Amino acid sequence: MPSAAQPPPVAAVEMGAQLVAELGDGVVTTDPDVLASFSHDQARFCPAGVPAALVRARSTDDVATTLRLAHAAGIPVVPQGARTGLAGGANAIDGCILLNLERMNRILRIDVGEQIAVVQPGVVNAELSRAVGEHSLFYAPDPSSWESSTIGGNVATNAGGLCCVKYGVTGDSVRALEVVLADGSVLRTGRTTAKGVAGYDLTSLFVGSEGTLGVITEVVVSLRPAPVPPLTAVAIFTDVVDTCNAVSDFMATGVRPSLLELMDGPTIKVVSAYRDLGFPENTGGVLIAQSDDPSRAATDLATFAEVCRRHGAEEVVVADDPAEGELLIAARRLVGPAHEPLGATLVDDVCVPRARLGDLLRGVEKIGVEYDVLVTCAGHAGDGNMHPGVVFDPTDEAATARAWEAFGAIMQLGLDLGGTITGEHGVGLLKRSWLETELGDIALTTHRSIKTALDPRNILNPTKVITRQ
Amino acid sequence: MPSAAQPPPVAAVEMGAQLVAELGDGVVTTDPDVLASFSHDQARFCPAGVPAALVRARSTDDVATTLRLAHAAGIPVVPQGARTGLAGGANAIDGCILLNLERMNRILRIDVGEQIAVVQPGVVNAELSRAVGEHSLFYAPDPSSWESSTIGGNVATNAGGLCCVKYGVTGDSVRALEVVLADGSVLRTGRTTAKGVAGYDLTSLFVGSEGTLGVITEVVVSLRPAPVPPLTAVAIFTDVVDTCNAVSDFMATGVRPSLLELMDGPTIKVVSAYRDLGFPENTGGVLIAQSDDPSRAATDLATFAEVCRRHGAEEVVVADDPAEGELLIAARRLVGPAHEPLGATLVDDVCVPRARLGDLLRGVEKIGVEYDVLVTCAGHAGDGNMHPGVVFDPTDEAATARAWEAFGAIMQLGLDLGGTITGEHGVGLLKRSWLETELGDIALTTHRSIKTALDPRNILNPTKVITRQ
Repeated sequence: MPSAAQPPPVAAVEMGAQLVAELGDGVVTTDPDVLASFSHDQARFCPAGVPAALVRARSTDDVATTLRLAHAAGIPVVPQGARTGLAGGANAIDGCILLNLERMNRILRIDVGEQIAVVQPGVVNAELSRAVGEHSLFYAPDPSSWESSTIGGNVATNAGGLCCVKYGVTGDSVRALEVVLADGSVLRTGRTTAKGVAGYDLTSLFVGSEGTLGVITEVVVSLRPAPVPPLTAVAIFTDVVDTCNAVSDFMATGVRPSLLELMDGPTIKVVSAYRDLGFPENTGGVLIAQSDDPSRAATDLATFAEVCRRHGAEEVVVADDPAEGELLIAARRLVGPAHEPLGATLVDDVCVPRARLGDLLRGVEKIGVEYDVLVTCAGHAGDGNMHPGVVFDPTDEAATARAWEAFGAIMQLGLDLGGTITGEHGVGLLKRSWLETELGDIALTTHRSIKTALDPRNILNPTKVITRQ
Repeated sequence: MPSAAQPPPVAAVEMGAQLVAELGDGVVTTDPDVLASFSHDQARFCPAGVPAALVRARSTDDVATTLRLAHAAGIPVVPQGARTGLAGGANAIDGCILLNLERMNRILRIDVGEQIAVVQPGVVNAELSRAVGEHSLFYAPDPSSWESSTIGGNVATNAGGLCCVKYGVTGDSVRALEVVLADGSVLRTGRTTAKGVAGYDLTSLFVGSEGTLGVITEVVVSLRPAPVPPLTAVAIFTDVVDTCNAVSDFMATGVRPSLLELMDGPTIKVVSAYRDLGFPENTGGVLIAQSDDPSRAATDLATFAEVCRRHGAEEVVVADDPAEGELLIAARRLVGPAHEPLGATLVDDVCVPRARLGDLLRGVEKIGVEYDVLVTCAGHAGDGNMHPGVVFDPTDEAATARAWEAFGAIMQLGLDLGGTITGEHGVGLLKRSWLETELGDIALTTHRSIKTALDPRNILNPTKVITRQ
């Protein structure tokens, strides 16, 4: 299991006093109870240290001041948004400054003509989505946490979501950033225009860097015309490999669904135990597809139905209207809540080529048997990005250890199938050692060179993503 | 005008002999005539030095060997594809090794299910487009040079094209790269899966870095289902600002055209003098729009016609079928050839927010008057990316100097309007000093840090894009 590296000893009290002197005590907190409550995100198996102070920045200036002081003193800084992450990226490090961006929560500009919005990092995803919706525009990235997670956190982790299969991940909607660098200087990357190739693509470098290269203080996002409410179809299979084959064949037809989710048999069992939605006892896999193309949705779903039937679907239901469609995706929305009564669930995030989904699902099943744990598997099948969930009793030490091993075996399987250890959750503390496996020596050295170039004193979220040599 | 920095003195003969010894003389050339013919791309005003040797690499190994030797000796390496660039990025530096990738021209794999292709850098864009077309797939990036430029060069410059307005630039279609680093080690970036957030986005860092960070030896590109042939409409205006306003209003309707090109009055005059296509004498601006949405193209173009008429278009013609549409875009295709008899044309590449297009076109007109040069303006209006062309007599020294100044004034205007100096052509040698203006000190320092981290001996295309401090 990952463990936080020991930070350098720091003069925590002094740092706190200095921050208060510069920023005011409405911004800086050193109260241990408050610090503890801000010290971790939603990841399991990730240690959280004891921070020296919490800065709740109101402005880019507050962020710059914090970094300038931290840089001078060599004190680690852990940037964080709403702490909804699943990899420990926002967890405190002993003696660190927690730099929380939630107060920087203003939408600065919505430009309807250019179809962009300029926002502070603490804006909650759903608030931005609703605000641009009033202008008939659409902010596409929709991580499951969208009602609580912030744009800054979404950008820092390059968050995914349900509609990536058509609209891409967070990074695909980011045009420009304001980033405070390790020494407190303020960098602007990118452009507000539709195109631009002046210099290196620093925007993409900071997207997904999980706070290890700089602190994002402003984001220019691209918007799209709001799509019409989607139509929905559900297909029920007895065999999970058939379900997977239907996914890759359907995607090869050229249809671009706006959602294509898969749930395996164990997931349906868990959901059915929580709420009976009428799935047959022998359900081995369920697909849910949506299309939001106003003129082709019905045809798209007819193609989906045809492909699913050809792959042995027992039943395919196509909703007649968007409201009925909402009922059909109820099962997918219940996957999280349905797992809660079962104990703890360690959610994995592998992504494989779509043609290997069947191998992934069969392999995950075998891993469950091998490590004697329940593994359910649901996810964004249209992208090959699945979330196997290892269910375990956290009070049972042996079961916990087996769950952790199964979790690692799933990532190894993802790599063996030509995939990646993380499709959208990020690395944080949780997957640091697997990242090294995925990258290999040369890519790891390249990562370290860039980290050192931008953060020579290693104060930006150190111990996360990569370790310094 | 830009000038290449003086390279360090090199033992050119020795280096050539060493390369021949390692790679064979079928791969290495030191013949001065051959070297001269490979020493420049299609940029004007960019000096080309005298290279020590030309390596025509057959494999990643050849590239790695070349870089290993060059790195050890501290000799500059200039990577190049088909040398169709417009910014001098492929121009020789005195004493350099020209590292040409045209021989690495194999399409290694087309994966229809995953909708990706794996190609070597020397594959010509049009060849890839045709090869994937046989599988009813579509490689979207379509720079004007697509019949001759290579995928490696397209990736190294993050090339644009006509269909970016709907499908994005080259980088939006790149999933993964193989890159040989300065010291000859071979890095793999990215992933072949649809999603992936494991580590920093090194792929995007190398895309558009113009050979200054590494040499691209393999590219995994995303493909799309082939669109249907588009429908086309043309609108003719007397006033260029009306033309521009029609662009921003049309784009704000939510329609996503697959092409939206603008030509101003002077461009139409130049084209009409070359071939009479029946444009009225008083034409101030022409828009060409296409839609390739099979079920909505007619509606999209009806919206286009309505917006154009509302903005005072004198005439709007909507083609009844794709063949007639080809006739309508003939004028756009003739812009290049029609300029050739006029002397030399220095083609700019500014990109501004669409709402500022009118200010750009009016400003460019004024610059023409102020510097007493003919400036024509055509480009990818849907993206705000225009190519003002400064026409001059290269044998007239004073006119040449005025053209160069006008070229700079256009970039300053682009920056003043919230835009960028280059939407798709890149920086190379041509725009290096303007890049510094656009970036500012902090971004420039960040660029230099990254350059130094990845190329500590400064051998990779030095003097291009940025200078080392």
